[in-house]
Amino acid sequence: MIIDCHGHYTTAPKALENWRERQVAGIKDPSQAPKASDLSIGDDELRETIELNQLKLMRERGSDLTIFSPRASFMAHHVGDFQVSSTWAAICNELCFRVSQLYPDHFIGAAMLPQSPGVDPATCIPEIRRCVEEYGFVAVNLNPDPSGGHWREPPLTDRHWYPVYETLVEYDIPAMVHVSTSCNACFHTTGAHYLNADTTAFMQLLTDDLFRNFPTLRFVIPHGGGAVPYHWGRFRGLAQMLKKPEPRQALLGNVFFDTCVYHQPGIDLLGTVIPVDNILFASEMIGAVRGIDPDTGHYFDDTKRYVDASPRFSDADRHKIFEDNARRAYPRLDAALKARGH
Amino acid sequence: MIIDCHGHYTTAPKALENWRERQVAGIKDPSQAPKASDLSIGDDELRETIELNQLKLMRERGSDLTIFSPRASFMAHHVGDFQVSSTWAAICNELCFRVSQLYPDHFIGAAMLPQSPGVDPATCIPEIRRCVEEYGFVAVNLNPDPSGGHWREPPLTDRHWYPVYETLVEYDIPAMVHVSTSCNACFHTTGAHYLNADTTAFMQLLTDDLFRNFPTLRFVIPHGGGAVPYHWGRFRGLAQMLKKPEPRQALLGNVFFDTCVYHQPGIDLLGTVIPVDNILFASEMIGAVRGIDPDTGHYFDDTKRYVDASPRFSDADRHKIFEDNARRAYPRLDAALKARGH
Repeated sequence: MIIDCHGHYTTAPKALENWRERQVAGIKDPSQAPKASDLSIGDDELRETIELNQLKLMRERGSDLTIFSPRASFMAHHVGDFQVSSTWAAICNELCFRVSQLYPDHFIGAAMLPQSPGVDPATCIPEIRRCVEEYGFVAVNLNPDPSGGHWREPPLTDRHWYPVYETLVEYDIPAMVHVSTSCNACFHTTGAHYLNADTTAFMQLLTDDLFRNFPTLRFVIPHGGGAVPYHWGRFRGLAQMLKKPEPRQALLGNVFFDTCVYHQPGIDLLGTVIPVDNILFASEMIGAVRGIDPDTGHYFDDTKRYVDASPRFSDADRHKIFEDNARRAYPRLDAALKARGH
Repeated sequence: MIIDCHGHYTTAPKALENWRERQVAGIKDPSQAPKASDLSIGDDELRETIELNQLKLMRERGSDLTIFSPRASFMAHHVGDFQVSSTWAAICNELCFRVSQLYPDHFIGAAMLPQSPGVDPATCIPEIRRCVEEYGFVAVNLNPDPSGGHWREPPLTDRHWYPVYETLVEYDIPAMVHVSTSCNACFHTTGAHYLNADTTAFMQLLTDDLFRNFPTLRFVIPHGGGAVPYHWGRFRGLAQMLKKPEPRQALLGNVFFDTCVYHQPGIDLLGTVIPVDNILFASEMIGAVRGIDPDTGHYFDDTKRYVDASPRFSDADRHKIFEDNARRAYPRLDAALKARGH
């Protein structure tokens, strides 16, 4: 079985975007604010957006199951207040749940959180509970920067975030560290902000002892870990200067990297420096990079090809990357698969 | 000849730091503000700090000449106003000039700029002129984020920066894109902010056509280009989606990457994806990472070892990386070397 741990519902029906535009307009002019019930999307519409897009490409590329969460760039936690984020997260998560119900063999949910700048992250707990208990979701996406590129919340190692961690630990679900749209003109959303957040989060973890307090807490750092594997020597050297243990010992019991790296040499590097037990297959398809690489004739984000072709991996390694590691990082996914006889 | 394009005076005599502390105290209490002339550092002190540190390691590692600029983390452009930055930059640049005069075969200067948040970068031009015309400096360090981790200036492609670019073009000197200390708790200075800035700057350049307006402007992206080479496929794919030419065509006539990547697989990746003509040897020694890698027994930042050992490079490639590319990227360095018969 090939599990893609990083997919977003980037192809949701246009009605969702229209509803969101009305919601944003309603922040300034409450007379324009829509009710959640104003959004009506039928199952056929969901099927069409999935079958012509994600599911089609999954079949073509040979992946089986995607851990599916709301569109990351649309989370836009910086917009409005907690109530705005809460309503928006509930709607987006429910759509992913419905997709997972329509295609239970191919999609299982991960939750967007109703974060809002300056608001206690404990306010996200009810949505986590709903998504796990009612929707069967197996993970969450945690945004370390709900300001959208201004980085005004404390680091992920701060007690500010502990209420969320306690809930993740209670359910034994991991958090993918994933920012949303940048509203800082310096940072291109998918070309800078996403990668910077990955690097930033890893370095925050390196400077602290968070996992002493939460030994079973797990993070997935997406986009191949940002700059981290390429600069693995730098991070090892910085850990040494900070009198911390080697990152391999201190962090890799709790931190995973996905394979959203869109060329062969990048995947080869990932496989060279990061232990295979810490690598999770992912493509973020359909996501940031949607075109075909003219050099190869294949989609940039068809990361399965790179994992298949990499001389760094044995067949046993690939089995871990494609399936076993995901079952370990996402125990509720493993349980759901076993309940279905997989 | 082996030219290291990225060295900072991180070992300057303690008197410099003490003077700076008084300068910073003087921002709130002008009675404590020191005069520039209060700082007195003798040539013997300079010699000691250089001979026991940078020059010692250069000799041990086999590099000949370092392009030498003030300590990056001490630039701290976010502190005080333009006058504070201006006085501080003048002092730091003069010290690097004095080092270059004491050891003309081993050090040549690159200027710190007197940037200040929200201040027109044109105010940096007199310092650039002094450093080039009086000190024989061959480059500048340009900080895309003088706020120190809050990223409040416009992107590097904005006309805001054009007065600096016009001056760089006039003198035919490159800018290394280099941030300073982060005062944002989210970003560790050398483990996140530096790398993020490198990635951010490259993506800013990718989204614009700056080099159409400045065809001879050149940037050096330090720290191996941040996350860029590792995610080269992502950047190529994003360029395609933005209807831009391949980065190789659009940017690599004007952008260089240094080799400050502190492990063998990282340098191998750099050499795999970035054309050899765009790679400049550098170590940032003595800098962010000062220890010995227990896995190899050698200094993490002894990057010459990685370049020497990489199967990606032929001897001709290494000659380019160690010398020829630097002469091309820094024509005033080339002229200075030729004037001395090199």
